[in-house]
Amino acid sequence: MKISAIDAKFEAQKIAFAPITFQAIMAMKNLGVMEYIYNKRGKATTQGLVNDLGLSKYSIEVMLETAEVMDIITLEEDKISLSKIGFFLLRDELTRVNMNFVNDVCYEGSKYLEESLETNKPAGLKVFGEWDTVYEGLSKLEKPVRKSWLEFDHFYSQDAFDSALKIVFADKPKKLFDIGGNTGKWSIKCCGYDPDVNIKILDLPGQIEMAKQNIADHQLQDRIEFHPINLLDTAQKVPQGADVIWMSQFLDCFSEEEILAILLNCAQAASDNTTVFIMEPFIDNQPYDAATYSLVATSLYFTCIANGNSKMYKMSTFKELVDKAGMKVDETFELIGDSYHTILKCSLK
Amino acid sequence: MKISAIDAKFEAQKIAFAPITFQAIMAMKNLGVMEYIYNKRGKATTQGLVNDLGLSKYSIEVMLETAEVMDIITLEEDKISLSKIGFFLLRDELTRVNMNFVNDVCYEGSKYLEESLETNKPAGLKVFGEWDTVYEGLSKLEKPVRKSWLEFDHFYSQDAFDSALKIVFADKPKKLFDIGGNTGKWSIKCCGYDPDVNIKILDLPGQIEMAKQNIADHQLQDRIEFHPINLLDTAQKVPQGADVIWMSQFLDCFSEEEILAILLNCAQAASDNTTVFIMEPFIDNQPYDAATYSLVATSLYFTCIANGNSKMYKMSTFKELVDKAGMKVDETFELIGDSYHTILKCSLK
Repeated sequence: MKISAIDAKFEAQKIAFAPITFQAIMAMKNLGVMEYIYNKRGKATTQGLVNDLGLSKYSIEVMLETAEVMDIITLEEDKISLSKIGFFLLRDELTRVNMNFVNDVCYEGSKYLEESLETNKPAGLKVFGEWDTVYEGLSKLEKPVRKSWLEFDHFYSQDAFDSALKIVFADKPKKLFDIGGNTGKWSIKCCGYDPDVNIKILDLPGQIEMAKQNIADHQLQDRIEFHPINLLDTAQKVPQGADVIWMSQFLDCFSEEEILAILLNCAQAASDNTTVFIMEPFIDNQPYDAATYSLVATSLYFTCIANGNSKMYKMSTFKELVDKAGMKVDETFELIGDSYHTILKCSLK
Repeated sequence: MKISAIDAKFEAQKIAFAPITFQAIMAMKNLGVMEYIYNKRGKATTQGLVNDLGLSKYSIEVMLETAEVMDIITLEEDKISLSKIGFFLLRDELTRVNMNFVNDVCYEGSKYLEESLETNKPAGLKVFGEWDTVYEGLSKLEKPVRKSWLEFDHFYSQDAFDSALKIVFADKPKKLFDIGGNTGKWSIKCCGYDPDVNIKILDLPGQIEMAKQNIADHQLQDRIEFHPINLLDTAQKVPQGADVIWMSQFLDCFSEEEILAILLNCAQAASDNTTVFIMEPFIDNQPYDAATYSLVATSLYFTCIANGNSKMYKMSTFKELVDKAGMKVDETFELIGDSYHTILKCSLK
């Protein structure tokens, strides 16, 4: 990016005041200021905002002056309009989900990011409780925090599963291992998609308990079985017998060393007929900057809040790890179904 | 600003993640990453950073990937350089002062900005203590917080006083009232500049006590006297007898209504021979965007932390208030001495 010194100084100030201007946008959204301006379609005025929203002229002025220097509104005479950036802040779902996640889950803990980078522990997690990782504390988070966390988690995985089913079931696997199966959402989808497939969910014992209930609710206990396993303990082996081993947004919860250990564990369980599918949002093949930015910034959440040592990875890094684990990537399905996700289809070398 | 939808979405994500990316920059500065990259003059590498700074490869990668999407570093092959924005974040004094101020004074309290905008009380101040305004609590703030506050306060007033002296003393005033005289810094400068002038500092009783000590240290007690006054109490009148009434970065601590009341108080004390000088950094006549942005964003600090109802004002607003108070602006000295400050020279109509 070519930029003059005077513009660089301007950009630096945007960063310098970013936390407080972020809160100004949150307030403008929550207090209805942005919605009001949008609905007035170019005819909003300061006085109108004061009259209709019941806020002081002072408060309206402080918000509008901030929004103007941030290029979120434009002024023509005394008429106020939302800019394109303002429109995305108000209406875009990616932006909404990211902002709520950052405000509710990351804001306070981010103060400890420096400590996390030094220790590779999620130092910011202490603002919620004394846990080693956010996953341990998830069920104990306060409702609005948990809601923002879940919406964020869900947003980045939606749209990918339906496209993934076609890829995974192209060769009609009979036995699928869903590693890091979590609530069982993917396994349930698989059973609906292919009436003949049988599934084994591999996850931590605590997760398995939650998944079991979910599977029973769907009356799929005859087709889905469970295998409690802690993959950070390399003595615990993935069992053999899978036609497909599936890992979706699972490996990004681990460090590179841990990912390699898990891939080696998969490789020891695989036969020549086993296909290992890895689905991840990678930071080096996103189609537009907003997506790349969101994923890269999400790494900071992993550092500071989630676990202290995982991140969003590059596809090139994953391909190297697959190779080191004694496997090869047979096919790459990039950005399936307009999602952020890429599937690496792997097998033993 | 013309911008495509896809770029607007990108800008919106920068805002959405701003608090956590802000902390990433703070960490990169504090951990020496930016200094290292700068000193290597285009030859820094990831491995070099890992080796020389004693941080994990993981932590270095998370920081560098963030810095890259923020346009703070540039990569050529595996060589890392600071961008112009990165240089300003590392070396520019305005940026340094703003960042430390935002991080130490504003970060946590900003969470309450929405509440402040609804109530016009400094709701964020509670993170430091139970005070009505930051001024009450200033002496009790923890040292690093107070240091960042004072550096910020000082940065925006430096460079203006020397140029201001020439303007104020052009007509050789014998008696100068320094309203909101604070520590007495301006009054002491006046005594040094003109051996014949006598000063009266008008301020809150608590401030007067602190100023008295300072004046005594400079052995100026014969030339500087004190007048305790609470200007929010309109029953307390500014005394008569001033050739010059001086108010520097004082009125921006008040709401428009309060400013008008103070100006009316000055007007009742003024004779036809009294000149009222108002020195302020105004948001509508700054020479470059970085300055405007800094001042406008500072209003959010006033809303949320300082007092809940003051801000950085437009010059046009001040000129209207001067007019309403029965005075006229005889001369405007804009951006004196390369500072952010403008002096309005006023007198009775």
